[in-house]
Amino acid sequence: MFMHNKRLQYTVRVSETNPGLANLMLEQFGGPQGELAAACRYFTQALAEDDPGRKDMLMDIATEELSHLEVIGTIIAMLNKGAKGELAEATDSEAELYRKITGAGNDSHVTQVLYGGGPALINSGGQLWNAGYIDSIGDPTCDLRSNIAAESRAKIIYERLINLTDDPGVKEALGFLMTREVAHQLSFEKALYAITPNFPPGKMAPMPQFARTYFNMSEGDGDTRGPWNSDENFQYVGSAKQAMAVDGGSGLPEVMLQPGQAQAVEQLAARTLSDPESDPVTGADLGSGELPTEKAV
Amino acid sequence: MFMHNKRLQYTVRVSETNPGLANLMLEQFGGPQGELAAACRYFTQALAEDDPGRKDMLMDIATEELSHLEVIGTIIAMLNKGAKGELAEATDSEAELYRKITGAGNDSHVTQVLYGGGPALINSGGQLWNAGYIDSIGDPTCDLRSNIAAESRAKIIYERLINLTDDPGVKEALGFLMTREVAHQLSFEKALYAITPNFPPGKMAPMPQFARTYFNMSEGDGDTRGPWNSDENFQYVGSAKQAMAVDGGSGLPEVMLQPGQAQAVEQLAARTLSDPESDPVTGADLGSGELPTEKAV
Amino acid sequence: MFMHNKRLQYTVRVSETNPGLANLMLEQFGGPQGELAAACRYFTQALAEDDPGRKDMLMDIATEELSHLEVIGTIIAMLNKGAKGELAEATDSEAELYRKITGAGNDSHVTQVLYGGGPALINSGGQLWNAGYIDSIGDPTCDLRSNIAAESRAKIIYERLINLTDDPGVKEALGFLMTREVAHQLSFEKALYAITPNFPPGKMAPMPQFARTYFNMSEGDGDTRGPWNSDENFQYVGSAKQAMAVDGGSGLPEVMLQPGQAQAVEQLAARTLSDPESDPVTGADLGSGELPTEKAV
Amino acid sequence: MFMHNKRLQYTVRVSETNPGLANLMLEQFGGPQGELAAACRYFTQALAEDDPGRKDMLMDIATEELSHLEVIGTIIAMLNKGAKGELAEATDSEAELYRKITGAGNDSHVTQVLYGGGPALINSGGQLWNAGYIDSIGDPTCDLRSNIAAESRAKIIYERLINLTDDPGVKEALGFLMTREVAHQLSFEKALYAITPNFPPGKMAPMPQFARTYFNMSEGDGDTRGPWNSDENFQYVGSAKQAMAVDGGSGLPEVMLQPGQAQAVEQLAARTLSDPESDPVTGADLGSGELPTEKAV
Amino acid sequence: MFMHNKRLQYTVRVSETNPGLANLMLEQFGGPQGELAAACRYFTQALAEDDPGRKDMLMDIATEELSHLEVIGTIIAMLNKGAKGELAEATDSEAELYRKITGAGNDSHVTQVLYGGGPALINSGGQLWNAGYIDSIGDPTCDLRSNIAAESRAKIIYERLINLTDDPGVKEALGFLMTREVAHQLSFEKALYAITPNFPPGKMAPMPQFARTYFNMSEGDGDTRGPWNSDENFQYVGSAKQAMAVDGGSGLPEVMLQPGQAQAVEQLAARTLSDPESDPVTGADLGSGELPTEKAV
Amino acid sequence: MFMHNKRLQYTVRVSETNPGLANLMLEQFGGPQGELAAACRYFTQALAEDDPGRKDMLMDIATEELSHLEVIGTIIAMLNKGAKGELAEATDSEAELYRKITGAGNDSHVTQVLYGGGPALINSGGQLWNAGYIDSIGDPTCDLRSNIAAESRAKIIYERLINLTDDPGVKEALGFLMTREVAHQLSFEKALYAITPNFPPGKMAPMPQFARTYFNMSEGDGDTRGPWNSDENFQYVGSAKQAMAVDGGSGLPEVMLQPGQAQAVEQLAARTLSDPESDPVTGADLGSGELPTEKAV
Repeated sequence: MFMHNKRLQYTVRVSETNPGLANLMLEQFGGPQGELAAACRYFTQALAEDDPGRKDMLMDIATEELSHLEVIGTIIAMLNKGAKGELAEATDSEAELYRKITGAGNDSHVTQVLYGGGPALINSGGQLWNAGYIDSIGDPTCDLRSNIAAESRAKIIYERLINLTDDPGVKEALGFLMTREVAHQLSFEKALYAITPNFPPGKMAPMPQFARTYFNMSEGDGDTRGPWNSDENFQYVGSAKQAMAVDGGSGLPEVMLQPGQAQAVEQLAARTLSDPESDPVTGADLGSGELPTEKAV
Repeated sequence: MFMHNKRLQYTVRVSETNPGLANLMLEQFGGPQGELAAACRYFTQALAEDDPGRKDMLMDIATEELSHLEVIGTIIAMLNKGAKGELAEATDSEAELYRKITGAGNDSHVTQVLYGGGPALINSGGQLWNAGYIDSIGDPTCDLRSNIAAESRAKIIYERLINLTDDPGVKEALGFLMTREVAHQLSFEKALYAITPNFPPGKMAPMPQFARTYFNMSEGDGDTRGPWNSDENFQYVGSAKQAMAVDGGSGLPEVMLQPGQAQAVEQLAARTLSDPESDPVTGADLGSGELPTEKAV
Repeated sequence: MFMHNKRLQYTVRVSETNPGLANLMLEQFGGPQGELAAACRYFTQALAEDDPGRKDMLMDIATEELSHLEVIGTIIAMLNKGAKGELAEATDSEAELYRKITGAGNDSHVTQVLYGGGPALINSGGQLWNAGYIDSIGDPTCDLRSNIAAESRAKIIYERLINLTDDPGVKEALGFLMTREVAHQLSFEKALYAITPNFPPGKMAPMPQFARTYFNMSEGDGDTRGPWNSDENFQYVGSAKQAMAVDGGSGLPEVMLQPGQAQAVEQLAARTLSDPESDPVTGADLGSGELPTEKAV
Repeated sequence: MFMHNKRLQYTVRVSETNPGLANLMLEQFGGPQGELAAACRYFTQALAEDDPGRKDMLMDIATEELSHLEVIGTIIAMLNKGAKGELAEATDSEAELYRKITGAGNDSHVTQVLYGGGPALINSGGQLWNAGYIDSIGDPTCDLRSNIAAESRAKIIYERLINLTDDPGVKEALGFLMTREVAHQLSFEKALYAITPNFPPGKMAPMPQFARTYFNMSEGDGDTRGPWNSDENFQYVGSAKQAMAVDGGSGLPEVMLQPGQAQAVEQLAARTLSDPESDPVTGADLGSGELPTEKAV
Repeated sequence: MFMHNKRLQYTVRVSETNPGLANLMLEQFGGPQGELAAACRYFTQALAEDDPGRKDMLMDIATEELSHLEVIGTIIAMLNKGAKGELAEATDSEAELYRKITGAGNDSHVTQVLYGGGPALINSGGQLWNAGYIDSIGDPTCDLRSNIAAESRAKIIYERLINLTDDPGVKEALGFLMTREVAHQLSFEKALYAITPNFPPGKMAPMPQFARTYFNMSEGDGDTRGPWNSDENFQYVGSAKQAMAVDGGSGLPEVMLQPGQAQAVEQLAARTLSDPESDPVTGADLGSGELPTEKAV
Repeated sequence: MFMHNKRLQYTVRVSETNPGLANLMLEQFGGPQGELAAACRYFTQALAEDDPGRKDMLMDIATEELSHLEVIGTIIAMLNKGAKGELAEATDSEAELYRKITGAGNDSHVTQVLYGGGPALINSGGQLWNAGYIDSIGDPTCDLRSNIAAESRAKIIYERLINLTDDPGVKEALGFLMTREVAHQLSFEKALYAITPNFPPGKMAPMPQFARTYFNMSEGDGDTRGPWNSDENFQYVGSAKQAMAVDGGSGLPEVMLQPGQAQAVEQLAARTLSDPESDPVTGADLGSGELPTEKAV
């Protein structure tokens, strides 16, 4: 069960209100790399996890991410605090309020008009958060890799946000949040490699004849060799031009139909037959007024 | 530019039509771990990538994923081929057609009625594909980690699908697709580690005092130590019960308001004041018919 | 900041695994009336709330909802536990596994194949959770009304789920969760009426001439009078047939265009003019093969 | 059946075109608190309602909301009328057109480029309308509460929009729409309380031992007592620190597995075992170039 | 403004309740080709249309589509009427209710549990309706083409639904709705061709050298010639293998960077340089336990 | 199978970076009328198509659309190239970077912060691409009509974008892409009319008594006659005021309930009965403080 303490995990000190900056901060509140996504990711994994160590770790980190969601949400609330009062109380003229929420450097109109300045579960462009952001599939070696990647992405988004503000209190709190993503990545890395083997993921072996093949599907100037397609590591198939099916078969699909099905398929084909010999007058001909003179409709 | 050859990368041989199985296969056509997501992921990364080796590799693999999308989509089309004709031509009675698309083992009604049996960009539950499935952020060390994770997840989904069908042709084609995910993961791993250093991601250094701290936020029986939170690797903060802000501050948010803003905020607070001393009659009181006798409304 | 204790708020005892039932339970995990929606609703409101009493209450209840999310998610994980192992380890034949996840009474294929049996943030139909489920707008009298309504809805969904299972442990835990929705509704009712006045919401007064008017827009047998449209409470406008604009104006829109704009609008109108006197041959005429003989194309 | 009269319910008079303002107005056309959501909400409830009075009222108000959708959509069309012609006819230079749709105070690029200036079913941030905005569940006491809340929210959004424009015709029409939300709320309130009892919603009684308990889940300075958690109204559980399951049980989940299931689960656990004694070299170690010297890989 | 008459446009007579069939009918209530999409499509076009004939026609048909939405929604409500009562009142045992909503031929669990049997704005697979289904762009020749296509699609979905039920009253009402789609398509065709010219759409002329070229991008057995790529109608470019840019240029992208930008781009490239000469040990090597013996980490 | 050549189909030459313009270009990369939607539309149709000519054509055009996706995505990458480096390397001050991504004429903050300047599958407003944009239903006469409409819409969006930029290289490449939409529309028109008959779509005949009826559902000044509702083409039903069901029936819905169902429905009705004779005190009365003095609660 969860409990809450009214102190933030990291103290938030905002120098001045700035709804435009608040809007950018939404990226880590309700955006795909944000803290809600992180918390939901680890929490849902924890619930289904049976390994005691991983379950404990996932719940530890999920809980911390909720605390981060609170920190970033509080930053947003502080940055919006002035604007929220002004619009609700209509203390300025209409023209001034309009200018404030649509003016240069401030793309906060959605936040202000729709959400009243509260932190909303949207990204900085107003896109509603959705659970498609969470890529857990219930296999620990995959989910840990996904978590490692997610932490690295979140680190970068924080880095970009830090580069965009000179408010020292905001920078410091963002720096803490960014740092914790690094620490979490370290833990997930350890947890992944504490499973041996962890590659290839799952139980079923790949087909050996295709497991270390590299197909050069994009050809032309710019073809580059490196460890990801080197002869040392891969069988490099240099050209797809011949375009044979790699199994040596025809490359054509087959299916066995039951008699009734075959008949229905033929009937459908006949009914919707395309006549390649025709040259029909079309809607575009009608529409362009350029009917071929020789064709009577 | 893309070109297409009419042969499939891997020959598809389906023993008999099965719309229920086709429905499951949608998971890798229009699902989050499916081939469209993979192709879009690598293709969009390739477009923005300037490093020649990574750009080439990303385009090679994106192109192959498109070919895989064709393979899995063709499997779906073959599995649905009979049902498609039957519904379009109404060759069975209504009751029989209804039974066929809603009966046990067949959850294909969406596919049949809405999409006419064609492969649709939905997952096996009918959820529309959306670009939130793609987590690229334009930093190569992050995106490669995301790609590694994505390939591992796709491998597992194929493994599960293979476990659900005994059609040998379908199993074989799925096995090929599964195998290629492993090969792609290998390439992405090589590409990630060909960047040095690649950890921590990005340019900005984490705050050293929090970069190797582990907070035990979930307490109780089940606390487990392992390499992900060991004293060797981390400073383990064993209890959050004290619940102090980790920066040593108050844990309380602050913001500086301009005078006009402060006044508006106060005005708003006064107008929406909650009176803790009151014990108001409420809608629930009215609704339950259990009005306290001592309170006049 | 949040903390977590490894004990559930309510003990979960599941008699036997049942992925089909697990699937139904998703309604309150990742569905619109579920616990994630509840927690996010109150938590985001709490962050922006300045009134100390409401802020405290919102955070108390948000935290409890997270604990409920854990309870319902744990029920799902327990109900899926057997199926999860079977598919991952492929301990049954393909046909048997296929039958198990698609058979009568079990619509869990999405959960099993895509999420590996873990609790996912989807509803029972596979729809991804999205933040459009949360209707907070940052005004306390509105948000409290929204919360009251949300709690009442969640109560009913639990009631329906309880009616669908005879597993006593599941019934009991669901009963607890249902009960807590009632308790939360009571708190929100008290909090709403502790604001006086709270109706009409907001600061701006309605136009008195339309604030107590009832328009009978749906006419015919079945017109019914009651307190919601009674003469005692409303000015009842009995028929819309005359269809005059209620302001007494023309009911036609007007806008003043600048000269350049007017010219562009006229140019656009001329270019896309519809000729009402024509009787053009159309694509449908071409397509039906029923061209009117008297019209040359 | 529906009919339409070409007069608007309220005359729309717009002083000058303003695509930026049009963009804000979308909030009530295609936003979550907008008129389409309202109309759909009441219309779908009406279809399933059997009570004659409620059915009549819901259809009356649904029909009026459609008329409001027409009013707000017409305002948008008028505000965009000039810009629509200018872009379609390219009457300005490219630079001027670019400036007009991206300049300060005008965030209308989506509306202009994608929708050609027509009113679109998006909110002011471009988010597509979706049916997740509608929270009807088919229980009248819940749905009426939801409607009451929805009307109160819509009232506030109109109030905010009115505060942002000084065009008198727009203000007046918005004022009418705002007022009608108040009137509708009054009707829904009457209809809710015309059902007795209406609390708690539904048929199933809550568990008495938890129906009037308040858990203080968020602790620390700021704990506040009020009618929503007063001893008069609730049993106040002051501290969650002991963190016992409230049912007196272990707080730990249980499930009974069948023998085959148990075996599969154990097999899965063994295969994905996490070794807490290990200290594996990880990808992060490789990536940071800081391999511990004492560990051979 | 809209008005409503309590009679349906077409009388609905349902022989017996059938929640499974109700579920299929949702396709035309809240699905992409359904009546809400149709009504919204024409209504939003009508609001922005200035041509009097088209505006009138669009509003006529939009209004009729709302009446159709009422008809199909009423069919759903009738089909669900029995089930709605049973679940709300719990008149059956839990096991019986569970069987009824999850049994063979009945995929109505979402509809029953979440929406209480009311018609919901989802398709038959539970996907929430969203405004992405509406493709209006504010150009009449495009929008009319879109409407023609939409009517043809809706006709087919009704045809499929009719093929799935033998309830004569449902068949008849669906037949009416299907027929009206045909009639609407006829009107839209007439309206399109009443604009001359209407092809190509818009004002800007295509580049003549590419306006009648056909690129044979998909090569191999199966290449087929027909009027869509005949020499009579198109310049057929038979092979893409040479893969030159069609403009005769390099096919390589260029951009002019400012000095500061160029420096930043170089700095970024250097920092994330991929070393093609390396053969790094990777996470996959660690994970597979197959470290190449010759490489020290 | 797909192959890729590193040359673009059309050479992209960008004069200077411009993230604001890049943002607009997203409309045709990840927007509803963009190239991903086009490619997915034709590719999925091709997979299910059995007619050899249409299958070949669909795959030809799908492949070309992928090449167009590459062209438009490359334009975006070039336009963003400078900004991408600046934010990643933080070469400017925070204030300068903030100004650059939020300033007038630049709404690129989502693209920059979240996607790092790479082309993302969103429209110019940040809305995630979703498969609801694709309207294929698996009937060739419908799908070809949908394709014709889609090409015409895409043509217009390109035209609008061309009107917004004066960069000659961008204009030229967009002009090529626009032109190809015209050429594709021509092919789809030919393919549609090569099926005879193609109207009405599908196999089932409409009800003759309603197939050429036009209902004047929107009445009042502005009623206009034209070929879309002329007496020559349609039976014009001039007034809906009488509001009779068009089938001559009652216009009222009927359903036959089984005895147990009828009883449950009655029980539900009784439990949620609305008392039209009451005049209950409501929450609004409580909230407004305007309790009618004569009513005791």
